[in-house]
Amino acid sequence: MKYVDLNCDLGESFGNWKCGMDEEVLPCISSANVACGFHASDPLVMRETVKRAAANGVSIGAHPGYPDLVGFGRRKMDVKPEELKSMVIYQIGALRAFCEAAHVPLAHVKPHGAMYNTAGKDMKLATAIAEGIYEVDPNLILLGLDGSLLIEAAKKTGLAYAREVFADRAYNDDGSLVPRGLPGAVIEDTAVALSRVISMVKLGCVKSINGKHVEVHPDSICLHGDGRKAVDFSREIHEELLRENVTIAPLKEVIKWTQ
Amino acid sequence: MKYVDLNCDLGESFGNWKCGMDEEVLPCISSANVACGFHASDPLVMRETVKRAAANGVSIGAHPGYPDLVGFGRRKMDVKPEELKSMVIYQIGALRAFCEAAHVPLAHVKPHGAMYNTAGKDMKLATAIAEGIYEVDPNLILLGLDGSLLIEAAKKTGLAYAREVFADRAYNDDGSLVPRGLPGAVIEDTAVALSRVISMVKLGCVKSINGKHVEVHPDSICLHGDGRKAVDFSREIHEELLRENVTIAPLKEVIKWTQ
Amino acid sequence: MKYVDLNCDLGESFGNWKCGMDEEVLPCISSANVACGFHASDPLVMRETVKRAAANGVSIGAHPGYPDLVGFGRRKMDVKPEELKSMVIYQIGALRAFCEAAHVPLAHVKPHGAMYNTAGKDMKLATAIAEGIYEVDPNLILLGLDGSLLIEAAKKTGLAYAREVFADRAYNDDGSLVPRGLPGAVIEDTAVALSRVISMVKLGCVKSINGKHVEVHPDSICLHGDGRKAVDFSREIHEELLRENVTIAPLKEVIKWTQ
Amino acid sequence: MKYVDLNCDLGESFGNWKCGMDEEVLPCISSANVACGFHASDPLVMRETVKRAAANGVSIGAHPGYPDLVGFGRRKMDVKPEELKSMVIYQIGALRAFCEAAHVPLAHVKPHGAMYNTAGKDMKLATAIAEGIYEVDPNLILLGLDGSLLIEAAKKTGLAYAREVFADRAYNDDGSLVPRGLPGAVIEDTAVALSRVISMVKLGCVKSINGKHVEVHPDSICLHGDGRKAVDFSREIHEELLRENVTIAPLKEVIKWTQ
Repeated sequence: MKYVDLNCDLGESFGNWKCGMDEEVLPCISSANVACGFHASDPLVMRETVKRAAANGVSIGAHPGYPDLVGFGRRKMDVKPEELKSMVIYQIGALRAFCEAAHVPLAHVKPHGAMYNTAGKDMKLATAIAEGIYEVDPNLILLGLDGSLLIEAAKKTGLAYAREVFADRAYNDDGSLVPRGLPGAVIEDTAVALSRVISMVKLGCVKSINGKHVEVHPDSICLHGDGRKAVDFSREIHEELLRENVTIAPLKEVIKWTQ
Repeated sequence: MKYVDLNCDLGESFGNWKCGMDEEVLPCISSANVACGFHASDPLVMRETVKRAAANGVSIGAHPGYPDLVGFGRRKMDVKPEELKSMVIYQIGALRAFCEAAHVPLAHVKPHGAMYNTAGKDMKLATAIAEGIYEVDPNLILLGLDGSLLIEAAKKTGLAYAREVFADRAYNDDGSLVPRGLPGAVIEDTAVALSRVISMVKLGCVKSINGKHVEVHPDSICLHGDGRKAVDFSREIHEELLRENVTIAPLKEVIKWTQ
Repeated sequence: MKYVDLNCDLGESFGNWKCGMDEEVLPCISSANVACGFHASDPLVMRETVKRAAANGVSIGAHPGYPDLVGFGRRKMDVKPEELKSMVIYQIGALRAFCEAAHVPLAHVKPHGAMYNTAGKDMKLATAIAEGIYEVDPNLILLGLDGSLLIEAAKKTGLAYAREVFADRAYNDDGSLVPRGLPGAVIEDTAVALSRVISMVKLGCVKSINGKHVEVHPDSICLHGDGRKAVDFSREIHEELLRENVTIAPLKEVIKWTQ
Repeated sequence: MKYVDLNCDLGESFGNWKCGMDEEVLPCISSANVACGFHASDPLVMRETVKRAAANGVSIGAHPGYPDLVGFGRRKMDVKPEELKSMVIYQIGALRAFCEAAHVPLAHVKPHGAMYNTAGKDMKLATAIAEGIYEVDPNLILLGLDGSLLIEAAKKTGLAYAREVFADRAYNDDGSLVPRGLPGAVIEDTAVALSRVISMVKLGCVKSINGKHVEVHPDSICLHGDGRKAVDFSREIHEELLRENVTIAPLKEVIKWTQ
């Protein structure tokens, strides 16, 4: 039996601005990464998002980002490790308070956008994140890109980790993602994406953009809820995995079997 | 034996901007209200402030404010009770994460500035604050103005409370504070202020601005650390209370004896 | 011949968050109120919005708001007149720079949301706004609610003004708007709204919510672009006015004939 | 006769937080770079700062920065050229409105902190800044590091420029600044700094950190007002230049003679 988690970023509205089809993607996923107010979301949105995820039986994680609302946390910022650690602690704490108010646990932390990408390649920043998480609660799981330094930092810090793969992204030969913007970086064909997901989950491998065999460790697959097409695709992956007898479960369950 | 807590707002620096003489006022107080990033402070400042308070054995509270850095949380904003509750939950959670990282408990919550003043006179807002605190942790203490609706809301919600009095402010006959800006609102004479503090703590009363006897319930006295003069005055109150055999203790201890 | 301006708030997107159907409402209007980054918009959105309005031959105005993105400038804030004047000067200047970059003039200023409502009833705040506008450029037109103190303040300051009426809002007997939230405040029936608009523009009067005759001075009618229905309604008003031989023109032209 | 401008960053307070000894450094300088609210300052501070500079007869420039208050605009952010151009236009416009309100011209633009450093080495970003300035007002002067790409971008765009040198910073052999943090990067000895300033202004050269002769083109010298020592040093440079018969004048005058 194979296990995998399906995660999606939720709670990305901000004040008057709505974003994401949270209600529709929730039935497709087992883990929600909830924005914490630095790159998206606000206290009211966080409260509603946590309640909604809880009502759907979806496991909840904090999704901390850089303090950059106008850039949606996607712009790299030169923050020092100590600054980064503090902003991660802050955002985890803020989100966890809403979990407590809703009587559900906070299960994991997935850094957002530029923080996720930058720390994945910088051991000092990755360590700052892992340590920040550990200091708030050593039982939290760090969800990071499979093969990235975030996973290394979690191991070094003594933190549980979960490795994320992407259904709709091409991989380089070394297992890194082909950067968005390069030709072929995004898999547009749903059938191709589905077969890649099944290959990743059942065989632990996927074809690189150059046709090479790349080993992957899919504890969790990243889905999207920001549009009709994304939600439909999320539902198809969910259904295809069930058809293939893969058990979809939250990170905490999955990593018992995959690691 | 009489007991009282001495509290002070700390951690009001923001990024490059320094504010307050935290190091110097810490030895004078038993409780620190730490700003949470909405009206002052930032994650790095919060982390340092919590560490510093912990190192001085000072009990820590969250000091949530309106989201208004440029106005320092002193401008009244028309927020709805649900918005207010969410922003209180958010800020408490953020600060408490730094407490956990420093292995010290979060003991209380004191609303800041316009939030403190407005909610003190508006039962819907006071209740939103009390409920927000309760939802995060029903063991937290709400520190509010003696006689204000914040105290009523705490009672109604089933939350512990502590009643705050001011050493340097004049009182109206009904126990409310004479608004800043009115003549005589601020007690400038240190000797007068000291004798008022002793009267409040030992006798439970103080003279109103009209010379009437006003009953007060001083669980905690508000001190200030934002300048040489304020710190000196804080030290004098601390010393005078000791000379008068008053035990200075954190809120949790004090309210066992005073309520 | 009757003249009237049709105005609409534009440029209310913010970073990654899209808001409003600017492209579709632009052909219906003669004046655009462009958000200036305090309650909505950002520099990139402002630049695009000014270019788009200019390409449609629509006259451009600044739409300054309170510094409250999460509340969309709709929450009343207790700002002092000097603070208000400065934030108005700042926002006008910021928007006008984009007008200059696009080689089009800045024509008017309409305060947004809580700023518009609060200043409409507070002469100190209204005067602060009028003076702020005058100090940047005495040739700008202040667009405010017909009958409000904003219009009085413009007169007192020596600033040109334009009086705004609402197609979809009920009026009290004294010419003030029935507050949203009260029953009947919003006119839902398009045919009723259209006939009210024609009555206001051609006869200078409208029926109050109590059936009384209310005198109005419609230099400009407020339209909305935040949704399919709003845009359709805007188009219908535009077409109905043309059918009724009303000339739709920017404020600068209209006030030559109406005042 | 030699000419040079002395510039200093002013208006770096923010809301309740005070920063800089603006009043005391103003008599030492001929040009003020006024923060525009993105990395420091707020509308009220900008208004006061412009008035104060005007009252001292000091020429005024905009000092735009990255949107990063907590990082004081010192953290590099990956902004796209179009974003950068828009944020520069926005900030120039905002500051210029206060100049108009005070009946003084806006003379120049000096990017701040990380924006200054990053654009100095990146032609796309430097060009975005120069074009943004040009689009608002082609008569503005771009003040940038001597030898940097900001100067090249100004030339390419057809914008007047002024080249800045530093009195208290060591230079590499190629004329770039030794990065802060490296040993010897900051000149602590006042006498040494003064003699370097005189050498730069009168001879157009300075010794590099390796003892090499480096050619410099000092249209303006960067002074500081953020502390007692910085202000004293600014005064000494001012006095030393007068003793050496150097004419201290605003950028507009200086570049007539130096270029």
